[in-house]
This record gives sequence, C-alpha cells and structure tokens, in this order.
Amino acid sequence: MSHRIDSLPHLHLVVLAGGSGTRFWPASRRLLPKQLLALAQDPETSLIAETVRRIEPLCPPERVLVATGAHLVDVTREALPWLPSSAFLGEPVARNTAPCIAWATAIAARRDPEAVVMVVPSDHHIGEPSRFLEVLRTALASAEHAITTVGIHPTRADTGYGYIELGERVEGDVYQVERFVEKPNQSVAEGYLRGGRHLWNSGMFFFRAAEFLDAVRTFAPEVWSGIERIERAAKQGPEAEGEATRAAFAAFPSISVDYAVMEKATPLHVVRGDFGWSDLGSWESAWELAAKDENGNSITEQAVYVDAHDNLVIDRSSRARDKVVALLGVEGMCVVQTDDALLVIPRNRSQDVRRIVEALQKADKHDKT
Amino acid sequence: MSHRIDSLPHLHLVVLAGGSGTRFWPASRRLLPKQLLALAQDPETSLIAETVRRIEPLCPPERVLVATGAHLVDVTREALPWLPSSAFLGEPVARNTAPCIAWATAIAARRDPEAVVMVVPSDHHIGEPSRFLEVLRTALASAEHAITTVGIHPTRADTGYGYIELGERVEGDVYQVERFVEKPNQSVAEGYLRGGRHLWNSGMFFFRAAEFLDAVRTFAPEVWSGIERIERAAKQGPEAEGEATRAAFAAFPSISVDYAVMEKATPLHVVRGDFGWSDLGSWESAWELAAKDENGNSITEQAVYVDAHDNLVIDRSSRARDKVVALLGVEGMCVVQTDDALLVIPRNRSQDVRRIVEALQKADKHDKT
Repeated sequence: MSHRIDSLPHLHLVVLAGGSGTRFWPASRRLLPKQLLALAQDPETSLIAETVRRIEPLCPPERVLVATGAHLVDVTREALPWLPSSAFLGEPVARNTAPCIAWATAIAARRDPEAVVMVVPSDHHIGEPSRFLEVLRTALASAEHAITTVGIHPTRADTGYGYIELGERVEGDVYQVERFVEKPNQSVAEGYLRGGRHLWNSGMFFFRAAEFLDAVRTFAPEVWSGIERIERAAKQGPEAEGEATRAAFAAFPSISVDYAVMEKATPLHVVRGDFGWSDLGSWESAWELAAKDENGNSITEQAVYVDAHDNLVIDRSSRARDKVVALLGVEGMCVVQTDDALLVIPRNRSQDVRRIVEALQKADKHDKT
Repeated sequence: MSHRIDSLPHLHLVVLAGGSGTRFWPASRRLLPKQLLALAQDPETSLIAETVRRIEPLCPPERVLVATGAHLVDVTREALPWLPSSAFLGEPVARNTAPCIAWATAIAARRDPEAVVMVVPSDHHIGEPSRFLEVLRTALASAEHAITTVGIHPTRADTGYGYIELGERVEGDVYQVERFVEKPNQSVAEGYLRGGRHLWNSGMFFFRAAEFLDAVRTFAPEVWSGIERIERAAKQGPEAEGEATRAAFAAFPSISVDYAVMEKATPLHVVRGDFGWSDLGSWESAWELAAKDENGNSITEQAVYVDAHDNLVIDRSSRARDKVVALLGVEGMCVVQTDDALLVIPRNRSQDVRRIVEALQKADKHDKT
C-alpha cells in the first residue's frame, strides 16, 4: 500500500460516467446507463465499479473523481459505496467531454496543485488488468513530459472507432501523435489494420493538471472562461460554486476533448496498448465477452437451447431465477429481458437498438426508455 | 329456444378434451393444455369454451359431456362454469379416443336410450360458425342412417393430417367414405389436393349411440368388455361405477376410434365441410389466425416492431400490461412469454416445440412443463 501511494502521490483519477445508455436497452435506461450495469464476465459488478477497482493499485479512493450527470449522482454513488461523497461530480447538463474533463481537472488542481490526472471512461472492459496497469504506468511517466493518450492495438478493421496515427517513437511503446482520424470507411480501416501505424482512440488521457488547463486556456477559451468562473466562485463557498457551475455548464459549448484540446496540443504522446480492451459498444460485444457453451450460446442458468447457435440470453428481471428462456432453431440472436421489457434482435443488428428507444419515445412509452 | 330443443331432443354433445398440450408451450402445460387456452381471436375465451358455445344452438348444457383427464376435471370445469358438474367425465388414464368415446356414448345412452351423439374435439378453431352449424345439421341428419364424420375441404397439400377418401355421393354434401388414409407424404398430398376426392379428417363423429355401441361390440370387443363392466357396475351406484371405470381404463387398449371402429364400420358417411377450420396445431397456426399489422406482425398492446416482419408476439405473463416486447430486424419469429418461461422460435420450426419440453424434462425442470 505505502509503495503504491508513495510512488504516485499526486495522481488523481477522473472517471467519465456521463453515458446515456440507449445501446444496452432494455438493461440500460435513462436512469441506469451502461456503466452501472454488470456487462462483463462478473455478473455482480458494474462496469464503473470494475473500472475504479482496476485502477485502485495506482490511485486510492480519496483521489478519485467521478463525473456524471447530476441526475445520476445518487445511483452512481450507490455503485461505488467505498468512495467519499466528495468524489462525485454532477454535471448540471451534458456538454460532451471537454467541459467535463476541464472541470474535473480544475477541481483536482484545486486540491493538489501538482496533480497528475488520469482520465478514463467508466464503461469499458479490460480483459488483462495487469497489462493495463503497466500501460497506465508508462502513460503516467510520459505525462510528465506531454499530454498522453493510450491507443489500442487494433485487432480488426473496425469502422466504429476513431483512430490515432502514430508519429515518431519517443521510447518503448510511447510515440508522438501524428494526428487524430475520424471513423474511417471499411477500405480505409483495412489499410490502417495492414499499415500498423494506426491505433484505436481509447478515450483515456494522462496529463499534469496545470499543463492541460493551460491547453484549455489556449485552445478552448470558451471552455476556459467557464472554468475560471467556477474557480473564482469556489473561493466564496460551495453555494456560489454550485451556482457558477450551473451557469458555466449552461454556457459551455458541447464539444469533445479530442476536438477542443487534443488535436491541437503539441507535443502529444500516445502509448500503444494491448490489454484485451473492449468498449462494449452493443449487445454483440456483450456476447463476445460472455462465457459460452460449445455451440456459442451464452451460458446462463435460465437458458435452454435446442438446435440453437451463437445466441446471447440475458435475463435481468427480478424473477429470472424462476424463469426459463428457451430458444429453438435460432442463430445469432440476442434475447434480453428485464421486469418491464423484452428485446429480441439479431446480434448483427444490435447497434440499432437505439431505434427501439426512439420508437418507444414516439409511442409515448417514456417509462420504458 | 323451444325450436332448437324440439328439433334435436335426443342430441348429446361429447367434447373430447384430453389434449396434453406440449405444442403450445410455454402457454400450454401439463395442467393447462391447449383447449384451456384462448388461442383464437378472442383473447378472453378458451378454445373449449368457444367449442361448447358454438354448438349451443343445437345442444343445451344439460346434454353436454366433456371427457378429459381426471387430473384436468377441475380446471376444465372452471373453463365451462355454466355446465352442470355431471357434464364432466374424468378419464382415469389416457387411452386414446376409442375407449373414451365409447365410455361417453354409453353414459349418454344410459341417460337417453335414443341418444344421438355428436363427438367434437375441444381445441379447434372454426372461422365461420354459422356454416359450421349447417354442416352439423347435415351430419346429424345423415347420422340417422349411418355413422357420419365431417371431412374438411383441403386448402393446401398438408402432410400433417389424416385424409378421408370420398366414395359415392349419398346426397348433397354427404358421401360414402371410401377409406381413411394415414398422413401422406408431400407428393401424395399434392395429388389429393388436385384430385378433389380427399378431405382432411376432422375428428368429428355423429351417430346414434346404439349403433355406435353395436359397432364397438363388433369391431373392438376389448373396448366393449370394459364398457359392459362399467355399465353393470353403474347399476350398483356411483362408487361401484367409479371403481369399475378405473379398472376398465387400466385394461383398455390405447387405440384411436378411427382405427378401432370407423375404418371398419359400414356404411360410413362423410359430410364435406368448409367453415374456416383450423386444428391450431402449433404457434404457426396461432400466427395465421392472429390479427396482424401491415407488416404481418401480430397486433398486441405490448409489442414494438422495428424493421420486423411476420412475427407473433404473445405475452401471457401476469405483468404483460406493464411490459414491452421489442423486436428489431427479426422475421417470422414466435416470441411467447408466461410468468415463468419465454420461448423464441422461428414460426416454421414451431412444430418442434415439444423438443423444448423434452429438454426441460431431461434437465429436471419439470415445473416448467
């Protein structure tokens, strides 16, 4: 314990937990977004709890900040009961990642002017946690010199991610970032995979707080002015701070940290990472991660498969233990059930789940979204 | 009312309600067989209640007999609360249709030596009830002269039914039966459809009780001896009758009335019928009968379909009103739900539902069967 704290005494972890959670409907809801679900192998632990636990060897609870929507603070706190209540930041309104990260970074810097900040999404899966921690140590060492991100070694020509093009090697797995690339089309993605100079953008960032806030002031002045306003008000007490935060968020542009800061910052480093990462983008990735039988069907106490292959069955209803889910003659299907909803969708259409949510809203069934 | 009773004063209706109900799992169960379900358009009325109501213009409640399994008498009585309790006959053990029909016919004859008996299955759907009643009247008139059955005008080359080959015309829609034919293969069934001389065996029979019992004595002596035993015991009171019934059923061969009697009886008449008949053999036929939207999806309050076609959604769980069932990118699927089970099966595999029931039994989940 003492080694861990001594070695990174200024490290602050910022967990981004602002997800809206339509992709995992019906398990995810407006008030139960993806990061609060247990979607990886452990059926008891939410993704956000796994995220914080995974990094605990580097960062103790008192230096964790969790940024989520104001309406989600209570449920998020319940998912992370061992964190102090000062860990939870409720965004008055969602404004994408740049305002949120700047805000959390300013708070970390207020607590510790020498803060080094590590920003991670709350809803990803990491298959190899110890390799992940090694990459984090490398990224944190790099962050002494430059804002640093982690790029994931691509395993397929995925068109659903942004990519980071590698520049010159700095040392070991650390490279200069040549540029950020938007989601490519299929043939471009295939070229990236063959070329070996593009990594998936993981949305993780590592920096000295002061350096990042400088970059915000320089590259995103409309964000910086709100942060300054909050910091001034904070000196007058929590009430003034809360009011300034609401006003600042109302005025913030909705803008990603990639676009507002990262694409403009130099130098910018990227660490090449390969640690069984999945962004768990849809029910299809949940199937990929699930424990499966010899026919590729997810193993659950509830399911009975007859002449069925490569299916995912998830029953999150309160009566799941007393219920059987039977699939016959069905292939590649996701069947997901909660107390008030049931979804049946082919795995390869699972990225379209949001169309169900839209249809429910249109049908005035808001209680089901 | 007076006309109806005056015109057919000796008519007794025997409703066969011995179905075991694996085909409509999970809606049907050992203790809730198909005839007790509302599977046709009216979501409130069980098939057996529809059956009795449909024939009520010809036969009043006091002349109805319902033959079912002893373990199903209570639930069957609940489904037909307007019938006197003397209407319900509980078979001690299932022995196919010949012993059951002979037994019920003997009881009708005991009550009324001039009884004319009409035997109908309890779990079929009739789309055109008034045409059906016309056919019954024709069949009952024919039954004055010969044991009579009804054959359904085939609308497709179905290999799932037995067929009746027409002989000479007696008059109108009444023909001699040339012979009964077992379930044919596809090309034979197609020949039957083209030839126009084969009808589907509907399992309905019409006869004077005395004539039918004579035929049982002649063609099925092993059934007749049990019936005689029951009739002798009945004269000594209900207790003796019950004991004799149990003993007789234990000894009865398991044999169908077609095989034991009908194929041997001469003359035998058949009335050609065309009244929107369906034997509701599987979830596929439930889909065929269901009210559907312009995409061929069954219309229910619970379902939301996105980019989905020709699906059947049935929610019989107690929480159905608070539940949404969402299908996206799914075609020709049956999704059926109860409180303790969910079935997902392609419509064209629905005849295999019993394999699920077998798998559940194998997995020791008997409470789900």
